[in-house]
Amino acid sequence: MHILVTNDDGVTAPGLLALAQAMRDLGTVSILAPDRNWSASGHVKTIDRPLRVREVQLADGSLAWAADGAPSDCVALAINGFLPEKVDVVVSGINPYANLGHDVTYSGTVTCAMESAIWGVPAVAVSVDSPDNHLGRVEYAPAADYARRIVREVLQNGLPAETLLNVNVPYLAADLIKGIQISRQGLRVYHDKVDKRMDPRNRPYYWVIGDIPTGVPERGTDIGALGEGYVSVTPVQLDLTAYRFLSELNAWAWE
Amino acid sequence: MHILVTNDDGVTAPGLLALAQAMRDLGTVSILAPDRNWSASGHVKTIDRPLRVREVQLADGSLAWAADGAPSDCVALAINGFLPEKVDVVVSGINPYANLGHDVTYSGTVTCAMESAIWGVPAVAVSVDSPDNHLGRVEYAPAADYARRIVREVLQNGLPAETLLNVNVPYLAADLIKGIQISRQGLRVYHDKVDKRMDPRNRPYYWVIGDIPTGVPERGTDIGALGEGYVSVTPVQLDLTAYRFLSELNAWAWE
Repeated sequence: MHILVTNDDGVTAPGLLALAQAMRDLGTVSILAPDRNWSASGHVKTIDRPLRVREVQLADGSLAWAADGAPSDCVALAINGFLPEKVDVVVSGINPYANLGHDVTYSGTVTCAMESAIWGVPAVAVSVDSPDNHLGRVEYAPAADYARRIVREVLQNGLPAETLLNVNVPYLAADLIKGIQISRQGLRVYHDKVDKRMDPRNRPYYWVIGDIPTGVPERGTDIGALGEGYVSVTPVQLDLTAYRFLSELNAWAWE
Repeated sequence: MHILVTNDDGVTAPGLLALAQAMRDLGTVSILAPDRNWSASGHVKTIDRPLRVREVQLADGSLAWAADGAPSDCVALAINGFLPEKVDVVVSGINPYANLGHDVTYSGTVTCAMESAIWGVPAVAVSVDSPDNHLGRVEYAPAADYARRIVREVLQNGLPAETLLNVNVPYLAADLIKGIQISRQGLRVYHDKVDKRMDPRNRPYYWVIGDIPTGVPERGTDIGALGEGYVSVTPVQLDLTAYRFLSELNAWAWE
């Protein structure tokens, strides 16, 4: 099996290395990731400039490719011709923060998997729910172990067309994680607000950000599963049609 | 009614002005849009820097705000405190090219509406399916007329939570457009491939792009509706859970 490992934090991120090392138990690993951090960058298609790719050496001595495009560009590049061998699965992460609820359309980690699903390659996005106050040091081993188990299942069973898995792992020691819970997307609650400040020349600028997002910890959702100590595995589809609203919308006074 | 008009092509785009003029029949219009083109930029949340906003004058003399953030940033900024008055609906566009099928997660036009839906404000994304060879001159009047009709209905009926409308208008004279068709998201077909070239110093660079995307013109989809000469109105939801796959995924050998 040929596994592409990528991320949105940049090729030197320790979460990427932990993921790549876990994936080597399942097959041949290629690494192609952005040369810098693209967090909260969304689903990007770079169309107005070409990409450069350079070979880099990771902390364990292994080789990787770093491209100057967005995370989703790296996936398109790898799948559509840069890598000579066919890619069997794309795994992105490990993101040091959870990607829950509405985060999925912002998240570079998840949009890597979206890009892969668009090109017909099964994909898994992996994030760990580490607290914001860990002083830069994140423990990735339990999340890497779960990523290995989940990707092994994906390689055995395949995924439906236009579908990816969004995996979030609680930030707990391995023996405290209760297992895997298949979940639906929960409701993220953002607390952003506009904070107007004046610069030293007395001209305004605006921070559009607030406290860390929270969420509704409803049972059966990704947020609920994580809150209970489970690894959440949420199948995400690229058909965003609001099917349950179609008939009501049809009944509006269109003529 | 207070209507926010925005786009992803930048505040000076003629499609934005056509849309703003049409919306003035429905209420008070505020314009806050990016100061440059962000096409295919996806859903962005700018968190590592503040935004600047400046007042600009559009071609018809009206005033608008231009911000140095992404399209979705402009919506968050406007809704969460920059504009003193509550926003009743967000309308983004008019994009000069269609946003169909999988385009919705890449499209700045659509992600403006996603951002708005996340903040609980009804939203409509409007695009016109102009050909790529129009030499820069696009006729926006028919699309603006349909946008007015559709936004009027949204203001009367409201939209379900976490739901937006993605509107695509065929590039036809008004009397040749057959009307509105409520549709689901179709299957976009991208033709991107990796084109490796050598620069003057004999170092490689990579274009990841190909022919213009096409699509499967299935009846009932946005692509099908547009192909038949209808305006497609697709309700898009932010819950991306692949519900039909949940039970099969639950049955995998997780233990």
